[in-house]
Amino acid sequence: MSLPDAAVAQEGDLAQLVSPSNKIYFVRLEPGGELQTHRGVVRFDDLIGRSWGSQVSSHQGSIFWLLQPGLGDLLMETKRNTQIMYPKDIGYVLIMMGIGPGQQVIEAGTGSGALTIALAWNVGPAGHVISYEIREEMQKLARKNLQRLDLSERVTLKLQDIRDGFDETNADAVFLDLPNPHGYIAQVRAALKPGGFFGCILPTTNQVERLLPVLHNNNFAFTEVCEILLRHYKPNYDRLRPTDRMIAHTGYLIFARPMVSDLDVQPALVEDNISE
Amino acid sequence: MSLPDAAVAQEGDLAQLVSPSNKIYFVRLEPGGELQTHRGVVRFDDLIGRSWGSQVSSHQGSIFWLLQPGLGDLLMETKRNTQIMYPKDIGYVLIMMGIGPGQQVIEAGTGSGALTIALAWNVGPAGHVISYEIREEMQKLARKNLQRLDLSERVTLKLQDIRDGFDETNADAVFLDLPNPHGYIAQVRAALKPGGFFGCILPTTNQVERLLPVLHNNNFAFTEVCEILLRHYKPNYDRLRPTDRMIAHTGYLIFARPMVSDLDVQPALVEDNISE
Amino acid sequence: MSLPDAAVAQEGDLAQLVSPSNKIYFVRLEPGGELQTHRGVVRFDDLIGRSWGSQVSSHQGSIFWLLQPGLGDLLMETKRNTQIMYPKDIGYVLIMMGIGPGQQVIEAGTGSGALTIALAWNVGPAGHVISYEIREEMQKLARKNLQRLDLSERVTLKLQDIRDGFDETNADAVFLDLPNPHGYIAQVRAALKPGGFFGCILPTTNQVERLLPVLHNNNFAFTEVCEILLRHYKPNYDRLRPTDRMIAHTGYLIFARPMVSDLDVQPALVEDNISE
Amino acid sequence: MSLPDAAVAQEGDLAQLVSPSNKIYFVRLEPGGELQTHRGVVRFDDLIGRSWGSQVSSHQGSIFWLLQPGLGDLLMETKRNTQIMYPKDIGYVLIMMGIGPGQQVIEAGTGSGALTIALAWNVGPAGHVISYEIREEMQKLARKNLQRLDLSERVTLKLQDIRDGFDETNADAVFLDLPNPHGYIAQVRAALKPGGFFGCILPTTNQVERLLPVLHNNNFAFTEVCEILLRHYKPNYDRLRPTDRMIAHTGYLIFARPMVSDLDVQPALVEDNISE
Repeated sequence: MSLPDAAVAQEGDLAQLVSPSNKIYFVRLEPGGELQTHRGVVRFDDLIGRSWGSQVSSHQGSIFWLLQPGLGDLLMETKRNTQIMYPKDIGYVLIMMGIGPGQQVIEAGTGSGALTIALAWNVGPAGHVISYEIREEMQKLARKNLQRLDLSERVTLKLQDIRDGFDETNADAVFLDLPNPHGYIAQVRAALKPGGFFGCILPTTNQVERLLPVLHNNNFAFTEVCEILLRHYKPNYDRLRPTDRMIAHTGYLIFARPMVSDLDVQPALVEDNISE
Repeated sequence: MSLPDAAVAQEGDLAQLVSPSNKIYFVRLEPGGELQTHRGVVRFDDLIGRSWGSQVSSHQGSIFWLLQPGLGDLLMETKRNTQIMYPKDIGYVLIMMGIGPGQQVIEAGTGSGALTIALAWNVGPAGHVISYEIREEMQKLARKNLQRLDLSERVTLKLQDIRDGFDETNADAVFLDLPNPHGYIAQVRAALKPGGFFGCILPTTNQVERLLPVLHNNNFAFTEVCEILLRHYKPNYDRLRPTDRMIAHTGYLIFARPMVSDLDVQPALVEDNISE
Repeated sequence: MSLPDAAVAQEGDLAQLVSPSNKIYFVRLEPGGELQTHRGVVRFDDLIGRSWGSQVSSHQGSIFWLLQPGLGDLLMETKRNTQIMYPKDIGYVLIMMGIGPGQQVIEAGTGSGALTIALAWNVGPAGHVISYEIREEMQKLARKNLQRLDLSERVTLKLQDIRDGFDETNADAVFLDLPNPHGYIAQVRAALKPGGFFGCILPTTNQVERLLPVLHNNNFAFTEVCEILLRHYKPNYDRLRPTDRMIAHTGYLIFARPMVSDLDVQPALVEDNISE
Repeated sequence: MSLPDAAVAQEGDLAQLVSPSNKIYFVRLEPGGELQTHRGVVRFDDLIGRSWGSQVSSHQGSIFWLLQPGLGDLLMETKRNTQIMYPKDIGYVLIMMGIGPGQQVIEAGTGSGALTIALAWNVGPAGHVISYEIREEMQKLARKNLQRLDLSERVTLKLQDIRDGFDETNADAVFLDLPNPHGYIAQVRAALKPGGFFGCILPTTNQVERLLPVLHNNNFAFTEVCEILLRHYKPNYDRLRPTDRMIAHTGYLIFARPMVSDLDVQPALVEDNISE
């Protein structure tokens, strides 16, 4: 059996060009188009029909690598006008909130759309993402980022304050990327399916402390607070070692699930992530 | 607009019951069925038709919480007869290898099927996972785990040694969870789409050191070595602090992409994960 | 030149005996004495005169290793009736507060005396440690721990509440290991030399948040908040990897220095520990 | 009781001046001397007699803080012509190797003298440090750094290759900060007291893997491999959070103790740093 062939860059594909200094460019391969860099011009007509993974050359002779875009690279590159979630955070959120094909997921705020992209990628054509934002220019940016990836059809962008509640009910999952999620927990409850998945990211401990009692008072349970740390290594086989520096903090991740009944009996807290 | 309603546990659903001590049970809600615990028996007929997120009671009066299964919980619970990847690792792998709806993904070895589940979950009904394993009993276990989640149709399990190569070509992504991936890189190359996504997990530094030159010699580039650390916090709003202990290591993650041309010109190494 | 010879266990020495299962015993080598273990009796007369680093045998033939005590092992073993600082924390505190021979250092509370031991060890015979505690039984325990190490003469233990202030002034350094240091900062100021070294350890973020403004209002500057993480590796040369689990948290360390003048002009905050 | 008074900057003292942008200057307060900065000149005659912890002014009106030097700051500032150990590493080394007043300690290589300073500081006037180096210019730099801190009398600097062995025997502790410690373990054994303390720091995993079997073959036991991570927080009481970036790696620390007898019976490995 041979898997479906898509080994060759086609007209209209989104491509990732990587320069000799590892600078990454995302381009849509329109005929006649070109990428201008200080290392020279790369003509898209030279790329269309080339195998992914090829070396291509600018008119000045600089080598670029032609790749299909990696989701991680796309997320890192998404314009950072706002506090951005990193791939390390997004990957864990997707797993812990069970985001998958066919789901209905709500997000606020949209920001530059990094998480929106990942959610849309994962719910697939049968699912849908509704994303709220109050800053018009951020929504525009997110729309552009989604369009570039052909993900717009899976996403409804709303320019609307969630203070007045979400328009939806029975969502599979709701994620908040806002500075004050503790102000919107009743609204989240109303939008979420009973037992659904709530998540948010917060940069400071003070914000986490403010959120936790509000979750409890709104009958959320199975609350988890955690952070994800990513440590890179220099990939030299004979001098293997971590990189000198690393991103030390993006945010604390909080997950919880809304329960139907009053929690007279509380589930035990998970005090430790060392099971058994 | 109201999102599709699936707020109520239905006959045949997979459910997650959580005991007062936070013990997790996954059960298929067959009529007449029951869960026997040392806290008493929970009858499934009492659960069918109840809202997700409800408290339910055993015949001895113990409270259990009725939830739809979380993917993270499912992955943690997947029987651990082998070195298992944790949700923190799996989430990052899915992002970095761009796993999404509709893709064709290869994995070896299957093990107990934790990553297989996550891959199948993410490629959705339009995608497919081919998973190789040489130990028959592991394959059986993985099959059982996939069946329980109704994911079997998205996965082809093969009882076959990859020493002789994969049957597929042009796969979007290949992941190896084996002790000696350095022995199979030529095979991976042959199965992967040019420019596709390769990943693996290795517990020791010695294994990473052995793998890196083999990747290089087989014209893989954009190699990344990293590890993901997950730190939990005790979710007490007025005594917020990390848990006392944590999982300190599961494995090193390695990612790389096969290039078409000979890499006379090497891309710059990513020496640091601090961009800009 | 030959360095002074102390290669042989002498009568009266404190010794560290390590069992085959790595259990550590600290014993004072009194003639006629013995250590009773479930692996048999080790007679001290058999140890006196033996070289440090020897293997010795219990009467049942179990092998024990005879070592001079390591300070790290001693600190780990100090009875843990209270929240204990770990060697990783103590080492950093000693450096950051410049603790060295000849200094006058104040500590509250004494607890079981782990930090007291390290301070007394480091100030040497020419220095002095004053340690406050309000729980009589803790002070007794600390006194016993200090006596065992012959460090009692370097330490004054006070059974006294620091609410009413310290008896001393112009101390080189003051360290607080108390749940509510924010209640004692004026007292610390009065006891510390201008520009001296203040430090404390706190397990929760809430406590850190309460302390910081009080430090600021009392003209402390150069405030640092940090934590020290220790990650062990399994020392196998051909399967090198981190241990599976680790201590994820002991406490946050806070350091600051009292300034003389009103801080109309504030020094810049250290936002980052990446210098240059 | 009032502790000894040294509250005032005296002629000849080493002082630490901190600029408004947190730049640190170490100066010896010689009469008539001055510090020239781009924020203006600070005259030492204006500092002598001032209380430590004072604000002082440059002739242009910029505020500087006058402090006694912190050992941590001194170690960070020690000229970095070589791979330098950070205070986080040095503090743990001092504890784990039991460095204290009165001891005889050997080090190789000297480098710029950061660890040398900390060792000399801790052994006090009754102890002694012997430090080997083969690069003359590094030794000169270390000598200058030691002189500035008045620590020269406690240190013997040797311009000598340890390939031919150390001149000393029965040292309490030997620390190696060299790229190839595995080549010098027999020499270390000869210089160390039986049961003494050996330590070293190595940046790569490959070096650790080469060292471990050599330690074992030379009858070293109780081997520990670890790393120390330091995470700083932004000290804002109402927005408490880790700094964005951190030093991710300096080196792996290895500790071991030379045993007298052949280790037919090996002590159990410490597999985990979670005791009890």
